Amino acid sequence: MSPNIPSEQWAQVIEKQGSVTYKKIPVPKPGPDEVLVNVKYSGVCHTDLHALHGDWPLDTKPFPLVGGHEGAGVVVQLGELATELKIGQKVGIKWINGSCLACPYCQRADEPLCAKASLSGYTVDGTFQQYAVAKAAHVARIPDECDLESIAPVLCAGITVYKGLKESGAKPGDTIAIVGAGGGLGSLALQYAGAMGLHAIGIDGGDEKKKLVEKLGAQTFIDFTKTKDLVADVKAATPDGLGPSACLLLAVSEKPFQQATQYVRSRGVVVCIGLPANASISAPVFDTVVRMINIRGSYVGNRADTAEAIDFFRRGLIQVPSKTVGLSKLQDVYELMQAGKIAGRYVVDTSK
Amino acid sequence: MSPNIPSEQWAQVIEKQGSVTYKKIPVPKPGPDEVLVNVKYSGVCHTDLHALHGDWPLDTKPFPLVGGHEGAGVVVQLGELATELKIGQKVGIKWINGSCLACPYCQRADEPLCAKASLSGYTVDGTFQQYAVAKAAHVARIPDECDLESIAPVLCAGITVYKGLKESGAKPGDTIAIVGAGGGLGSLALQYAGAMGLHAIGIDGGDEKKKLVEKLGAQTFIDFTKTKDLVADVKAATPDGLGPSACLLLAVSEKPFQQATQYVRSRGVVVCIGLPANASISAPVFDTVVRMINIRGSYVGNRADTAEAIDFFRRGLIQVPSKTVGLSKLQDVYELMQAGKIAGRYVVDTSK
Amino acid sequence: MSPNIPSEQWAQVIEKQGSVTYKKIPVPKPGPDEVLVNVKYSGVCHTDLHALHGDWPLDTKPFPLVGGHEGAGVVVQLGELATELKIGQKVGIKWINGSCLACPYCQRADEPLCAKASLSGYTVDGTFQQYAVAKAAHVARIPDECDLESIAPVLCAGITVYKGLKESGAKPGDTIAIVGAGGGLGSLALQYAGAMGLHAIGIDGGDEKKKLVEKLGAQTFIDFTKTKDLVADVKAATPDGLGPSACLLLAVSEKPFQQATQYVRSRGVVVCIGLPANASISAPVFDTVVRMINIRGSYVGNRADTAEAIDFFRRGLIQVPSKTVGLSKLQDVYELMQAGKIAGRYVVDTSK
Amino acid sequence: MSPNIPSEQWAQVIEKQGSVTYKKIPVPKPGPDEVLVNVKYSGVCHTDLHALHGDWPLDTKPFPLVGGHEGAGVVVQLGELATELKIGQKVGIKWINGSCLACPYCQRADEPLCAKASLSGYTVDGTFQQYAVAKAAHVARIPDECDLESIAPVLCAGITVYKGLKESGAKPGDTIAIVGAGGGLGSLALQYAGAMGLHAIGIDGGDEKKKLVEKLGAQTFIDFTKTKDLVADVKAATPDGLGPSACLLLAVSEKPFQQATQYVRSRGVVVCIGLPANASISAPVFDTVVRMINIRGSYVGNRADTAEAIDFFRRGLIQVPSKTVGLSKLQDVYELMQAGKIAGRYVVDTSK
Ligand SMILES: [Zn+2]
Ligand SMILES: [Zn+2]
Ligand SMILES: [Zn+2]
Ligand SMILES: [Zn+2]
Ligand SMILES: [Zn+2]
Ligand SMILES: [Zn+2]
Ligand SMILES: [Zn+2]
Ligand SMILES: [Zn+2]
Repeated sequence: MSPNIPSEQWAQVIEKQGSVTYKKIPVPKPGPDEVLVNVKYSGVCHTDLHALHGDWPLDTKPFPLVGGHEGAGVVVQLGELATELKIGQKVGIKWINGSCLACPYCQRADEPLCAKASLSGYTVDGTFQQYAVAKAAHVARIPDECDLESIAPVLCAGITVYKGLKESGAKPGDTIAIVGAGGGLGSLALQYAGAMGLHAIGIDGGDEKKKLVEKLGAQTFIDFTKTKDLVADVKAATPDGLGPSACLLLAVSEKPFQQATQYVRSRGVVVCIGLPANASISAPVFDTVVRMINIRGSYVGNRADTAEAIDFFRRGLIQVPSKTVGLSKLQDVYELMQAGKIAGRYVVDTSK
Repeated sequence: MSPNIPSEQWAQVIEKQGSVTYKKIPVPKPGPDEVLVNVKYSGVCHTDLHALHGDWPLDTKPFPLVGGHEGAGVVVQLGELATELKIGQKVGIKWINGSCLACPYCQRADEPLCAKASLSGYTVDGTFQQYAVAKAAHVARIPDECDLESIAPVLCAGITVYKGLKESGAKPGDTIAIVGAGGGLGSLALQYAGAMGLHAIGIDGGDEKKKLVEKLGAQTFIDFTKTKDLVADVKAATPDGLGPSACLLLAVSEKPFQQATQYVRSRGVVVCIGLPANASISAPVFDTVVRMINIRGSYVGNRADTAEAIDFFRRGLIQVPSKTVGLSKLQDVYELMQAGKIAGRYVVDTSK
Repeated sequence: MSPNIPSEQWAQVIEKQGSVTYKKIPVPKPGPDEVLVNVKYSGVCHTDLHALHGDWPLDTKPFPLVGGHEGAGVVVQLGELATELKIGQKVGIKWINGSCLACPYCQRADEPLCAKASLSGYTVDGTFQQYAVAKAAHVARIPDECDLESIAPVLCAGITVYKGLKESGAKPGDTIAIVGAGGGLGSLALQYAGAMGLHAIGIDGGDEKKKLVEKLGAQTFIDFTKTKDLVADVKAATPDGLGPSACLLLAVSEKPFQQATQYVRSRGVVVCIGLPANASISAPVFDTVVRMINIRGSYVGNRADTAEAIDFFRRGLIQVPSKTVGLSKLQDVYELMQAGKIAGRYVVDTSK
Repeated sequence: MSPNIPSEQWAQVIEKQGSVTYKKIPVPKPGPDEVLVNVKYSGVCHTDLHALHGDWPLDTKPFPLVGGHEGAGVVVQLGELATELKIGQKVGIKWINGSCLACPYCQRADEPLCAKASLSGYTVDGTFQQYAVAKAAHVARIPDECDLESIAPVLCAGITVYKGLKESGAKPGDTIAIVGAGGGLGSLALQYAGAMGLHAIGIDGGDEKKKLVEKLGAQTFIDFTKTKDLVADVKAATPDGLGPSACLLLAVSEKPFQQATQYVRSRGVVVCIGLPANASISAPVFDTVVRMINIRGSYVGNRADTAEAIDFFRRGLIQVPSKTVGLSKLQDVYELMQAGKIAGRYVVDTSK
């Protein structure tokens, strides 16, 4: 009854720091609480570059390592306990591959904070292969009507910005500033914000970004390369002039962070999402206290956030600007990414 | 019907930066939405020192200025709109003397964030005088059975730590670390924490502090002058070893702040309350994001927080270690305070 | 500087139960914390009928009484304490005319629950006159760019459904069932729901209602006059078949209420808003407990809800289907209303 | 390495509706995600009576059925995936034996609402046997220092009232009314309320109950058999006379429910926990709306609630009045229970 599963498959394998090798490797076998997924498409994320280069303060599994954590495919084999899934069902493999399901975080649906969480393409093999294993309880359920190629980047980028918007505490009708609005995460954040009834101030640099940001529904675009007083401009873009209720920092560096704590309204929330190497956040105590500013980090979504982020996509509210190439071309994508030459998201097709 | 109100009264007046003059001044008259309060006792707070020295990034009213914002007394005169109060009723004058009652913050019961809030003993005359004016809507209601001398310090210190505990999001059964637990704010924070069902880890230095902190109900005392690894010790003092749910920083300086972001558990909250001059808060982005740390400032309580903080006192759950001297001795108190020689709280009796 | 205020004005006055008299009466004078508003337009609400007939378990002020609580106009006179408003500013007089600003509810921004709240057109004279008095702190601020004629019904109907949607706890992406979706409150509720990122199931009867409900953005329309199993149909209209997260009951009667507790998902919220005479809510304990159902009443919005509801209107997200007649025709409107012949909202123009 | 597990064991088995048979049955085997627990003690709960008599609108598994869902014991065998537990570890088997870990409720840590939740002693064999199977992810972790005999009743009764207190939304310093305060659930509720900083009004009947309720820390006892106006008395027992913030209904019947919606303060919460057969809740719409009353059902706790409820016990804050008899005497306990002759909780010792 189960599909014809080969014993070998094509994969992109990190055998030594810094490069991937396109080669045939064995198809893995799922454990009792796991499923085997025939990955059709996988988005390529900056995190994959960090796995490749080992420049994060977090160890990967020993090489060989298969990267990738935005994989969309179909279930082809079920572990004996995987009774909640079916052969042929569309699913997604995301950053959180599995977790202990028993620690204080897992008990509170905060499984991304589980100390034993396994990370796809980082601490376990990921989605840059044709067949990947994932925990049945954690695999994202993708409705039948969704296109696997388009949804792939939602599985990391989409979930991450959606989670950040939830963590911001901004409620429908509130204004939120999105720093890096014209980037890959930003363009998804703008769409999720709009679908959630939020009004967005997009902050980025250049006329091309301006055009994109306005097209994606931002009420205001502020060009940080042109403004004379960014803080004043952001405040002026809110109906009462008191500043936005929240700010999403998608590309944190020192300056945008400090500006955010200044232009966010009193009781406002500054959400850090981007993970630049060695960056710090810093704010004056006096202002933070008397204005009751809230600074918080937001990591990836849990399983419920995932389902919700996918449902916005299913309803047609989220468009992902992406470009698809064969899995065999992954090294090229990494090189473009490292050169900063990518606008939008790259997706790899595992059949090529 | 109304009590015999004199035309002159004794007060401590700041006529020039740095010193107070004990002299007779006219008794002020309440406006239509105000009351005149016969202040019996007033606590002395570090903020009063800042008003005296003008070293905060916030202007006082032009001199002469009467300081003080922890005043407990009785209503002696009512403005025509002050229909919710009665002559003879016990009330407190606190830091927030009044606010616009109409801005987005006042509409949401966040009147301490009102841009037009008037500040007792800072932007309007305060409680270091025998008769002071306050807005009827903002004056703290003190139940008859409460002793005015003992309650005075609750009106600023008590409300402030209680608000911080609420803002921490810690719920009954959670563990909270209190940095500066043996100080004036700290000793109140320990008692409020206990009354709220929280388990406290008190952090401070020295054996005297240890004794006090343990007496006030802390489950654990950690001496920062003796520990070899404060972060590890704080984590070890929680039942599951993951660290406290929250941390209250009553005396922020760089080091305790950075330690707090390390020992607080993932999803934990670091609440900044203390206001040292020119201090900054700083944390690494990576850890803040992947552990979803929340850093927030907490200012003074609103009117509802005030009523709640007073109710804990009324029930006998809060003891304020304080020493009372005559109002005429205020300059002496300031000198002790500046010399760092005060343990607990000083209260002035306006009749002496 | 202040506008020319006449000493007499036209008003519709309830002099005895059941009818209004169109006559000239003196223009009232604002107190120190009040403003005088030149009412331009006022919506007519079912509550006005209850005031006219005295059939609610709540007394009106003694007659003569001027009804009306959806008044949009401009400030023409300021009490001495009304410093937060300006002559000529557009404002709205809503159901809550004033409150004590000092009780536990006012302190928590729940002024509609204040035991001393004054009610426009009910316990104080309302907006069916050319000049009405209102408390400066409570009058709704209407932005300059808003049209007074169109916004009038937002001041009661709009705020009420917006508040109900907030109280439902439904968050962007959730599905909410709206019972009575094709009525006056319902058509506003559908628009607010959409603007808040909610997906609506509209429940009402008849093809005309179906057309209207679908035009206003409901994902699904369910005709209670045609369905064979309303509970099953509502559940089937949600993506996972578990039922909507919440339900808004705009026209409560026994049956819709009991159905709502059945089709709402486990942990779902049933919000009662409509106020039919003598109705009761009733649900089986077993199901309520093991499915953790939440049943709650939602009254009118507070001042913050009011400002938010108006801001959605200002952004052009809310269209109010209404018909305007002269104030002199109010008795005719009441007769149509009583006969159940009104679809949408009537607005009276006080100049005619 | 694993303990000596026998192939047969003593159990109390329901072979036909209405009675239990004490007999030897085979020891069950755990699946890959399960553990085998050597049950030492098990509390006896009213729910066990419902299982015995089949009078709930919820089917049990086909007989033979082993009841019991308050089992405290030690792990003696681990399924291959049960890596988060150890042989010899103290654990509890509670009402929720397992759940799918994948549905919308499990994803949000609301596993008691999972449609596939298995129920100990009801849809799967429970704890009235010496060796019982439970899902590794759901089994309650009991700290080493806790006594298994005393903790048994916490595993259902304790968790249930603790959950209800959390669902009430009451925060430290608030007053909560507990209806049925002198019963088994009530006496635990009073202790949890106190440990959570709540002030309790205990409602029950008779002088013996009064004595117990006051001993367990209630601020006020109200005897429903003696009061002339229960609603007025409950309101009068709150500091501001507005009524308690919440009410816990441990023994719902029509009258206490309707009284609760009257004496709870505006914005108050009425929590239904008790499950009398065929009972309904009913309240007038008008009052529910204009006072914004919230009526909600609370079922059992999730795994996090369980851990928290146990931690209060571990700290010595909860004493469970119970009496222990041999498992062989279970039928006697049922008979006492049915005759209404039990005060406090019975615990069975599986070794006898
Ligand atoms: Zn990624
Ligand atoms: Zn975990
Ligand atoms: Zn102070
Ligand atoms: Zn204000
Ligand atoms: Zn109305
Ligand atoms: Zn009030
Ligand atoms: Zn039970
Ligand atoms: Zn489930």
